[in-house]
Amino acid sequence: MNKQIIFKKRPVGNVEADTFELQNNPIPELKEGEILIQNHYISLDPAMRGWMNDTKSYIPPVGINDVMRSGSIGKVVKANKHPIFKTGDCVTGWGGVQQYIVTNGENYYKVDDKLAPMPMYIGTLGMPGMTAYFGITQVGKIKEGDIVLVSGAAGAVGSVVGQIAKIKGCTVIGIAGGKEKCDYVVNELGFDAAIDYKSDDLHEALKEKCPKGIDVYFDNVGGEILDAALTKLRMHARIVICGAISQYNNKVKVKGPSNYLSLLVNRATMQGMVVMDYAKDYGTAAQEMGMWMAQGKLKSKEDIYNGIENFYETYQRLFTGNKKGKLVLKVIEE
Amino acid sequence: MNKQIIFKKRPVGNVEADTFELQNNPIPELKEGEILIQNHYISLDPAMRGWMNDTKSYIPPVGINDVMRSGSIGKVVKANKHPIFKTGDCVTGWGGVQQYIVTNGENYYKVDDKLAPMPMYIGTLGMPGMTAYFGITQVGKIKEGDIVLVSGAAGAVGSVVGQIAKIKGCTVIGIAGGKEKCDYVVNELGFDAAIDYKSDDLHEALKEKCPKGIDVYFDNVGGEILDAALTKLRMHARIVICGAISQYNNKVKVKGPSNYLSLLVNRATMQGMVVMDYAKDYGTAAQEMGMWMAQGKLKSKEDIYNGIENFYETYQRLFTGNKKGKLVLKVIEE
Repeated sequence: MNKQIIFKKRPVGNVEADTFELQNNPIPELKEGEILIQNHYISLDPAMRGWMNDTKSYIPPVGINDVMRSGSIGKVVKANKHPIFKTGDCVTGWGGVQQYIVTNGENYYKVDDKLAPMPMYIGTLGMPGMTAYFGITQVGKIKEGDIVLVSGAAGAVGSVVGQIAKIKGCTVIGIAGGKEKCDYVVNELGFDAAIDYKSDDLHEALKEKCPKGIDVYFDNVGGEILDAALTKLRMHARIVICGAISQYNNKVKVKGPSNYLSLLVNRATMQGMVVMDYAKDYGTAAQEMGMWMAQGKLKSKEDIYNGIENFYETYQRLFTGNKKGKLVLKVIEE
Repeated sequence: MNKQIIFKKRPVGNVEADTFELQNNPIPELKEGEILIQNHYISLDPAMRGWMNDTKSYIPPVGINDVMRSGSIGKVVKANKHPIFKTGDCVTGWGGVQQYIVTNGENYYKVDDKLAPMPMYIGTLGMPGMTAYFGITQVGKIKEGDIVLVSGAAGAVGSVVGQIAKIKGCTVIGIAGGKEKCDYVVNELGFDAAIDYKSDDLHEALKEKCPKGIDVYFDNVGGEILDAALTKLRMHARIVICGAISQYNNKVKVKGPSNYLSLLVNRATMQGMVVMDYAKDYGTAAQEMGMWMAQGKLKSKEDIYNGIENFYETYQRLFTGNKKGKLVLKVIEE
């Protein structure tokens, strides 16, 4: 049997518990060319909120009564004449919030769980890490000496963005919620400074921590923070639009950045990104990031919760900020 | 004597008549290396509104009791041992809203008033034309087959943007206010279609006129039109932020584009521009545009009013839209 989180109802604003339903369904038989994967860990990401909306986006919305979409990592437990994967392979892909999945293996990648623990492959070596890597290098186009501001700085993407920028010789200021997270990004991740958006006056703090302005702003949050960052742009600055978690549960219109004319004054660029576009280069990026990890230059932190029945409660932590690093749910039962 | 429009008072919201004062002041003596220019025509541009605000921008604000800043074209009527300019030269630069200016000639360019009428050198062959040229080619990065949307389509910048895009093989849709302007851009300038923002439903009209979406949006207006355009972006679309005339007289905060997350979904870019950055290439651009004009591919239209004492009334036409093409004020008295 397969415990699954089924998407039952499109939420308006905050996601309520009745958005999902835990079901226990039989596992279908494998057809030729298919594999059965047992999911060990599920990735929880702010993007999930967007996938629940019935609007045109970079991927179709999750359908009502479908398994809730998520990244995942697990092991192949059965294979029916599959050309690539065999029993025992550790694979990562879009397994969804469930314990098992039958698939033809499309969009799955084999990884080596002896080199790194499984949750890291859905964190720093997975989508969030890839988002950070390509976002800050390809869209943010950082170069040595740049002043880089990143929001969601203690999160799965932001923490990696900031560390990569440090590796590349930038000055890095993080924005995070609460003293503990701010201390973490400065003391453990090596950021140059941090701003606590929950207690600091944002404009005053930016003036103090970024007195020369910023060359790159990596935005995971949108809203007031994006608007404040716009006031600090240097000439030819780049804003990477990666997400807007502050706006995802809105019942009203998204808050547009009032200060966008700073783009004109400063000949600056605001550019959106979606990590899937860089899929062909994931391997190269993972290799480089693995090397940085081995050298102790890049730290990875996963916050792992347990039990598929706790999915909803764990998901909420994305929006309350009550987590440290990459949020992961263990769904395999031992 | 020199009739001058003096900037007396920073406006809040709409510019009232007491913002300016007409004065008649003596012309100072020329020092060595200086020239006296008699301004023939003054350029009226939406950017003037921004120069009146005491905020950090791409150039300092106009000072209280200074001559109002403007582009201008005129003739050198006296020269005191000037290394470059001599009496009779036709020159264009930042002469301000006045009949004469004494200057060392910095940032003035000599032009040939036998090749084109003087007003054209502050229109299509001047700042607005250069803004259009570099904005649509360098920032908009148009290529053959692109679908280009431009607001302020009958204006000094927008009309040239659209025509250049047509020359480069794009499909061009203009947005303008009123049937007359819409007819003008389609029938006289050769745009493929036009949307009348004053009477059409913007979203419906965009759906009808841009059924495949847009690759480039050249924005002169901001506000609701920018927000609507964002909903039509194709993958890797570019938005050129050239101006935001709908927001310049705001007493409240600028309306930020609510739909900016379309940049993320469509991996699109929004980039600001200021024409001065391309100054070193003005000559090349003017040559190419002059060639297009000679070939009948690029039309230039100036709307010329008369008399420096009518400056305020003429300036208002920028914001009421009661003008056709490039707004120019003749300040020389015959």
